[in-house]
Amino acid sequence: MTQLITIIGGGVAGIGVGILLTKLGVEEFLIIEKEEIGASFLNWAKETRFITPSFTGHGFGLLDLNAVFPNSSPGYTMGTEHLTGRMYGQYLKGIAAYFKLPVLEKTEVTNIRKEGNEYIVQTNQNAYKVNTVIVACGEYSFPKRPFQHGIHYADVESWSDFEGDRMIVGGGESAADAAFHLSTNGWKVDVYHPGKDWLAFDADPSRSLSPFTRDRLKGEDSQCIHEHPHSSVVSIEYSKKLSAYTVTLKDGSIIETKQEPLLCTGFHSGASQFHSLFEWTEDGLPIVNEYDESTLVPSVYLTGPSLRQRETIFCFIYKFRQRFAVFVEHLLRQHGISYDKQALEEYKQSNMYLDDLTCCEAGCEC
Amino acid sequence: MTQLITIIGGGVAGIGVGILLTKLGVEEFLIIEKEEIGASFLNWAKETRFITPSFTGHGFGLLDLNAVFPNSSPGYTMGTEHLTGRMYGQYLKGIAAYFKLPVLEKTEVTNIRKEGNEYIVQTNQNAYKVNTVIVACGEYSFPKRPFQHGIHYADVESWSDFEGDRMIVGGGESAADAAFHLSTNGWKVDVYHPGKDWLAFDADPSRSLSPFTRDRLKGEDSQCIHEHPHSSVVSIEYSKKLSAYTVTLKDGSIIETKQEPLLCTGFHSGASQFHSLFEWTEDGLPIVNEYDESTLVPSVYLTGPSLRQRETIFCFIYKFRQRFAVFVEHLLRQHGISYDKQALEEYKQSNMYLDDLTCCEAGCEC
Repeated sequence: MTQLITIIGGGVAGIGVGILLTKLGVEEFLIIEKEEIGASFLNWAKETRFITPSFTGHGFGLLDLNAVFPNSSPGYTMGTEHLTGRMYGQYLKGIAAYFKLPVLEKTEVTNIRKEGNEYIVQTNQNAYKVNTVIVACGEYSFPKRPFQHGIHYADVESWSDFEGDRMIVGGGESAADAAFHLSTNGWKVDVYHPGKDWLAFDADPSRSLSPFTRDRLKGEDSQCIHEHPHSSVVSIEYSKKLSAYTVTLKDGSIIETKQEPLLCTGFHSGASQFHSLFEWTEDGLPIVNEYDESTLVPSVYLTGPSLRQRETIFCFIYKFRQRFAVFVEHLLRQHGISYDKQALEEYKQSNMYLDDLTCCEAGCEC
Repeated sequence: MTQLITIIGGGVAGIGVGILLTKLGVEEFLIIEKEEIGASFLNWAKETRFITPSFTGHGFGLLDLNAVFPNSSPGYTMGTEHLTGRMYGQYLKGIAAYFKLPVLEKTEVTNIRKEGNEYIVQTNQNAYKVNTVIVACGEYSFPKRPFQHGIHYADVESWSDFEGDRMIVGGGESAADAAFHLSTNGWKVDVYHPGKDWLAFDADPSRSLSPFTRDRLKGEDSQCIHEHPHSSVVSIEYSKKLSAYTVTLKDGSIIETKQEPLLCTGFHSGASQFHSLFEWTEDGLPIVNEYDESTLVPSVYLTGPSLRQRETIFCFIYKFRQRFAVFVEHLLRQHGISYDKQALEEYKQSNMYLDDLTCCEAGCEC
């Protein structure tokens, strides 16, 4: 019988799960990555930093928020508190090399089909017969582009490439990040989003912007940001006659703007590439059982920021990493694969094994 | 029999232990504070911030590094990542009021003496017969002043009060903080300390400066800092003739400096006020058993940054708060005081119950 476990994606979730498998003594697995390890992070705008601070608390049971295995601290490795995407990409490459993870880079999975109790994973290079598929495709490569025009946050290579005053559409952490950087560069920024004021107090911390972002928005560099809360954009069109973009709001008002608006409109789940492997929510999220396994077919697991368990949202690294050991333990038991129980215990001791979700906050401002 | 538990000190440790007792349903206790709640933090230089970042991860088992009870986040309450001392003092006052803690402010404990199985706690107001003494005096009010001259870090109200280029003696986090602020204000700073280069890589994270401080030292504002590692200061004298301070190093060299040097030479344990209640290490630290209880007399407990367990150093809030529930459980059992087991469980679930010290890092760069 086939023993191969395949992980689709060499980002934070794929590398994290690969390290867990290695620590558990499981050797028969393969990570398939369409670009390179950490590609999404390497593609971040170069000035953009993590909103979750890294700290070296792992010696006392408080694991670095951005670590993907126990006793690791990217903040310590990189000597900084808020890593850039490039630094984090380097961290992922470094730990993948250290653990000698079997990663096939520049290899794209084009199709996955069920064949009896197994799956045929077809890439642009080869085909693999596997018994387990772990979907770890992230979201950053799958930007939501709801309008005819607009430059998506994910397309930005450097904030210094932007010139002129600009409209930002969206109100989450990425919109705040974009607004901060453009304002820091001296541009006037108008942010349109349907929510309430960014700095308004919310009784639920998970619905608020991060402390890091709140600090940035209160700083001098953010003086050029003009926020327009309670404003839903419904369309963005280009008028050749006006040589300008016309942005229509839900209330019918129309705004003209010379520069192409910046879209901070979020991301699709990367699992959507493999639509037939999951059932889907109305919001376009894959549905999984209590072991993060597809409700549609067995031995297909979801990991990474698209993961939901009922109302609980695992959109940050420090959240979804806590499910690695839970679903991996399940899949190893399902397939009768033996593993090192002591290594699993290390994950439990390090706040990286979250099976009781009753304690968790429900919402999340991603 | 007397049931009163007395906590000496209304700082982070005293307030944290008071909240724990309240949550456990224990009512017979009293916190005695010589100034006001959070006084040490309120006395920090007003620009100085916590080096430990606050983050709202408590919904997913990653408690804010600076919280003193489960589900609390000073970073969320104050809307910032690195709190100032004044903000933290406000947080402590706020939570003490919320939990209606019995705190006697502006009351100084002048003497504690054993009388049979009890202790007489004498204040400048009154005397209390108690069965348990919890020493939570912190360290900030007890600066080490090893030289004839020098302004101690603890004496600084605002970094803007300092004019002129200045020598700093000491190499820990407080020296780096002082150097950063003076350099930011445009003054040339010379830092003399016996250790190695601040930014040198150390394989042990606990011996390195925090990520926050590393970022500050690498920034533009730190360009006026000149570090002199491997330099031990042995004396600071004042020469009227030269109208200058003369600083002698261990290697015999003498440095003249116009401005009074700034001493970042650390702190004594506040427990030293009650010398007869503890045995002491050669380094001037109180010795406790595995339940943080004095090895000399029963029912006297130590909490806060002076706490050591063999080689393990509990110098940060996120470290020593993990011992609150361990020693409080012990003292309640010792005295047969009943308590809410469920509340204790909440502390265990929140990384606030550290009884197995084998997992902990030993050293610490405080």
